[in-house]
Amino acid sequence: MKYLRVGPAGQEKPVAGLGGRFYDLTPVTPDITGAFLAAGGVSTVTGLTEVDITGQRLGAPIARPGVVLCIGQNYAAHAAESGATPPTTPIMFYKAPGTVVGPDDDVLIPRGSTRTDWEVELGVVIGKTARYLDSPEAAAAHIAGFVLSNDVSERTFQLDDSGGQWSKGKSCETFNPLGPWLVTPDETGDPGKLGLRSWVNGEPRQNSGTADMIFDVPYLIWHLSQYTVLEPGDLINTGTPQGVALSGRFPYLSAGDVMEIEIDGLGRQRSVLRDAAL
Amino acid sequence: MKYLRVGPAGQEKPVAGLGGRFYDLTPVTPDITGAFLAAGGVSTVTGLTEVDITGQRLGAPIARPGVVLCIGQNYAAHAAESGATPPTTPIMFYKAPGTVVGPDDDVLIPRGSTRTDWEVELGVVIGKTARYLDSPEAAAAHIAGFVLSNDVSERTFQLDDSGGQWSKGKSCETFNPLGPWLVTPDETGDPGKLGLRSWVNGEPRQNSGTADMIFDVPYLIWHLSQYTVLEPGDLINTGTPQGVALSGRFPYLSAGDVMEIEIDGLGRQRSVLRDAAL
Repeated sequence: MKYLRVGPAGQEKPVAGLGGRFYDLTPVTPDITGAFLAAGGVSTVTGLTEVDITGQRLGAPIARPGVVLCIGQNYAAHAAESGATPPTTPIMFYKAPGTVVGPDDDVLIPRGSTRTDWEVELGVVIGKTARYLDSPEAAAAHIAGFVLSNDVSERTFQLDDSGGQWSKGKSCETFNPLGPWLVTPDETGDPGKLGLRSWVNGEPRQNSGTADMIFDVPYLIWHLSQYTVLEPGDLINTGTPQGVALSGRFPYLSAGDVMEIEIDGLGRQRSVLRDAAL
Repeated sequence: MKYLRVGPAGQEKPVAGLGGRFYDLTPVTPDITGAFLAAGGVSTVTGLTEVDITGQRLGAPIARPGVVLCIGQNYAAHAAESGATPPTTPIMFYKAPGTVVGPDDDVLIPRGSTRTDWEVELGVVIGKTARYLDSPEAAAAHIAGFVLSNDVSERTFQLDDSGGQWSKGKSCETFNPLGPWLVTPDETGDPGKLGLRSWVNGEPRQNSGTADMIFDVPYLIWHLSQYTVLEPGDLINTGTPQGVALSGRFPYLSAGDVMEIEIDGLGRQRSVLRDAAL
């Protein structure tokens, strides 16, 4: 099953997607919330009304998450291009949940920014509270689904302007395009075997696979649950592979650029960059 | 005006406090939310029913914040005791909003912890969206009030277990006792002239004043608004002064310890430490 949210920003309606058809979820739930996911979502579209979403805006496929938790340097080649050695334990930080926008919404270059950068990531959405899980094998039961996520970053804000704490360069307005869909695990397949790609103005940037993660999804969920309580509807960005502008191999983003990302089975995003308005 | 939330965890009712008397706010608002604060709260208790809160549990005085944003090393003597030089720009990071508990609730020592530590802090609650403020002078209009906050920290998780990103040691279950009250700015007075103190088992630990902040409250709100959008109901922990266990001068917390903190005019907390249950 896929879940999506369709309509103008702030007025999105919940929709289910199955077999290329779409169904109105409003009789079942007011939104794609943690509570809806914790209750198991829907397992069938029987009895739901088919809807035509052609030409409509897609919002992020989940209502505002309780947290957006990010994993840093979870691909060895990205750690290297960032000038770091690969971590021996997951690096955890947060970005503001208010950064989440739709998959094709404009992304705003913050005032004063000279180093706005892209990061295609596999997002994991929690479906059941995870606290002190016994093992990585226990993680699967706590995952509602997977989602395409762009952990947009301003590198000067992240690395130079906050004493080494990264969140200042991660939490700018519009810095987390999410979607188009939340895809349930049965439909995603093995989250360790997905290709991830990004482009700027049609030119390839990142092209890797989740098989290259240092810490895989089950390990991450288990590990994080030893340090914090993960709640239904929370979003975890699991890290980005090599091929970002921070590497020095590509220019940073400018107003007018078109940034695209995709993950196998999780869809594709297209974001136009604009300068943050006064 | 003071705002507080009274009742069992998860079932708190909103209450206003004025002149040592307390008034039921449920006819006005279902909770002390960002929306209630953005609408200006209440300016009078006329027409409200007085209530007796004696013996009742206090919850955190605001509903779950959208973010808990923290400022690091904002007192020079604390930066020094942490082995750091004072920052030249505010250090920003987040902790999970799910950590917020009532002012007298138990605090859980995480499994595997050997270095759980206290941090008395002045908390600022946002009352009006703050985005690219023009100056520190513009900040006051965006503040709903002030609150006593304990930014409980696990130092190994914070400093050693996450590649230098602090949030892993800040986001454990129960790690942000908050309250007893949210106090409006007119009643708080100058947030730069408040005494802060902490004790463990009745012995003094921290004893300082917000006058020692490197970056004061107006500067912080203005500065942060250049990097992220602050929303009504968001909580900002503005940093802790010297006198924590990380200094090496005091033992870390153990189960059975009693941790107390207070700030002039913002009340006092009393937390009993317990081991996180299996």
